[in-house]
Amino acid sequence: MLTLALDTATGVCTVGLVRDGHVLAEYDISVGLTHSEGLMPQVDQMFARTGIKKEEIDRIAVSIGPGSFTGLRIGLAAAEAMAYAWQCGICGVNTLEALAWNIPVEGIVLAPVLDAQKGNYYTAFYEWVGGELKERQPVEMADADMLLDQLRVFGKPVLLLGECKRLMQIPLPEGISVVPEQVRLPKASSVALASEGMKALTGEGVFSLRPYYIRKSEAEELWEKRHPQG
Amino acid sequence: MLTLALDTATGVCTVGLVRDGHVLAEYDISVGLTHSEGLMPQVDQMFARTGIKKEEIDRIAVSIGPGSFTGLRIGLAAAEAMAYAWQCGICGVNTLEALAWNIPVEGIVLAPVLDAQKGNYYTAFYEWVGGELKERQPVEMADADMLLDQLRVFGKPVLLLGECKRLMQIPLPEGISVVPEQVRLPKASSVALASEGMKALTGEGVFSLRPYYIRKSEAEELWEKRHPQG
Repeated sequence: MLTLALDTATGVCTVGLVRDGHVLAEYDISVGLTHSEGLMPQVDQMFARTGIKKEEIDRIAVSIGPGSFTGLRIGLAAAEAMAYAWQCGICGVNTLEALAWNIPVEGIVLAPVLDAQKGNYYTAFYEWVGGELKERQPVEMADADMLLDQLRVFGKPVLLLGECKRLMQIPLPEGISVVPEQVRLPKASSVALASEGMKALTGEGVFSLRPYYIRKSEAEELWEKRHPQG
Repeated sequence: MLTLALDTATGVCTVGLVRDGHVLAEYDISVGLTHSEGLMPQVDQMFARTGIKKEEIDRIAVSIGPGSFTGLRIGLAAAEAMAYAWQCGICGVNTLEALAWNIPVEGIVLAPVLDAQKGNYYTAFYEWVGGELKERQPVEMADADMLLDQLRVFGKPVLLLGECKRLMQIPLPEGISVVPEQVRLPKASSVALASEGMKALTGEGVFSLRPYYIRKSEAEELWEKRHPQG
């Protein structure tokens, strides 16, 4: 099974090709360009360099959030369009879960975080046990204090990853650290690997994929504030 | 400081751009193509997608081995040519040490291995302590039995990475495992990060970089056998 994967949930634009658990290609760009400009040329270049044909793709795996509103919309739109055009399946992968695939190491708690603005983080906790990823706490929104309080109780080393910039500016309790950047941010190969056990949406189902937001966009919040009856 | 990194020591052709510890781009292709065909187009595409100009590069970091004879020669030739053309510095990075940068996690022993043919491996052992990579055993050549005997004594979890295909076919002692493929093979970002503390060769020194072989090539061995006086 050949999977084309994309993740545009953060500032990193990452695309990859994975065949039956083997990473054939990964291409990550993180220079602050708009995903709408960069994503498809990146996919196109990767096809050219690998010699893999678009017709060979069995499914598209796309990171559905939590994450940046605009980034997710661009990734999903591109993924749905490709699945429609090539008549292949599509899988939506939780961005936090995909991040945990960056560090397939046992004996530590992985705490991927994504910036939810206003001092909050989207987070979930994971652990690798016997080669399988176990969810230790489902996705929720927390501020830094809540997050660190929850992590303190595990009694084993905790690695924070994802969008940790602000967390790196505060003192972290012993045993909790932020992983270095080379494995901290989204990787399309992780999205592809996380999707391998999933059932793909096909046919018209391709269009039923939705971004996974926990809180409303600022625009929606503002709209509701101004239109209390609506 | 902006580093362009390459690693062609194994079947993976990987190029990357790292600025002062921040990974701007990484591009990995692993579909069995010849590095001589793929390497420069990959570099060229990455420059095009990031918008970074060749003139901005301060140094080239290249993986110098141990590894595939032909792969290393291609990587070094390309790195030297670019350093010469763009008049920038060049750093040679040990391929095994660069692999240890793939898993910047404390509390485990990292044992990168590269296939040395005839049942042997090039290997060295590393450990991350306080955010720094420590060498626990320098580079040597060992067969699988010797390697596993040496690793058993550490008394903490050991992760094998690199070219582990044959090691995955034998039963491994408890506590020793092969990391999944997404972090197992060379990454140019790791080569760049490993090079950041190094002093670059410049000027004519650019041409003094040599591949780091431990044993002779088969061709050299055959030559010496046939020319015992030589």
